[in-house]
Amino acid sequence: MEQSRDIETLIELMARLPGLGPRSARRAVLALLKKRGPLMAPLAQAMATVALTAKDCTICGNIGTAEICPICADDARANGEICVVEDVSDLWAMERGGAFKGRYHVLGGTLSALDAIGPDQLGIPRLVDRARDATEVILALNATVDGQTTAHYIADALAGLGVQITSLAQGVPIGGELNYLDDGTIGAALRARRQF
Amino acid sequence: MEQSRDIETLIELMARLPGLGPRSARRAVLALLKKRGPLMAPLAQAMATVALTAKDCTICGNIGTAEICPICADDARANGEICVVEDVSDLWAMERGGAFKGRYHVLGGTLSALDAIGPDQLGIPRLVDRARDATEVILALNATVDGQTTAHYIADALAGLGVQITSLAQGVPIGGELNYLDDGTIGAALRARRQF
Repeated sequence: MEQSRDIETLIELMARLPGLGPRSARRAVLALLKKRGPLMAPLAQAMATVALTAKDCTICGNIGTAEICPICADDARANGEICVVEDVSDLWAMERGGAFKGRYHVLGGTLSALDAIGPDQLGIPRLVDRARDATEVILALNATVDGQTTAHYIADALAGLGVQITSLAQGVPIGGELNYLDDGTIGAALRARRQF
Repeated sequence: MEQSRDIETLIELMARLPGLGPRSARRAVLALLKKRGPLMAPLAQAMATVALTAKDCTICGNIGTAEICPICADDARANGEICVVEDVSDLWAMERGGAFKGRYHVLGGTLSALDAIGPDQLGIPRLVDRARDATEVILALNATVDGQTTAHYIADALAGLGVQITSLAQGVPIGGELNYLDDGTIGAALRARRQF
């Protein structure tokens, strides 16, 4: 291709973003090139700022632009409740719901002997320390084998601290149709049925 | 949401790229946040470089990082052939094919009375000047009503210069199946049939 080297580099880097391939990256870069002033310059600036300032919160593992993330720094939130999530994206999903007003612990993955990810990599000792002052730890891990294995390990590690350990309810999603649900979910929803 | 303001800004700007919405922009930013060193910093740098240096080629209208784009600056390409395309993306598509070894003229759109886009906005007088020294002008505009209207206007403007005016062949695309082709394309392919 007879492109400028700099533009090629930009396309190659954009193509490494999830959801973008070589074609859509080229399309995105072209759109940027046509809006150099209103979009490209501010985007480059915003990205450089975040790349320089982003850091993992030393308390919960959320990503923010300060040592302590806005959630840990918020005095209005309940200190007694710690919600354990696998990933920052799960934390963001919980926050979009807006139903939880406590603190978080971001594991950053699940236990995996193959990948040499043990309790220390997931900050579980740090979580146990925090849980001593808490009243409830909510295990909001994904409903996958890895997620549930890790949840069981954490529950064992927290046992004896006197803190209440809970997990998210399993059942029919809002707006869900039974016809399209898997058998496991229907079974779980049936076992956990409640008074109408 | 309890995000850092800078990260929110970055997500909002990313969501304005074609092919990305609010959800996929968030996913892309999260991937960037996790690869701050290897991906985010170089991407921000590449974008800033291009935002600063990108400019429209003063000869053909292609976007590059110099006054004269690499195609216009390439001495090995034929000066006598000018390929007229609507958009920089069309030029890139032609170059990916690699079949054309002449020069380009990028219109930057099509004639539109509604949007007040006339011949001057598309650089048609500049094209007519360049065509005086050319042997062939290839009208590679899109096969849409707007594209073909503009092609006819350009052909009229070039008439009398003694330059050969051609357009791309219309017919069955490589790998195309008749069953899935529209009637217009089949008709055009039939009219332009050739000796086997």
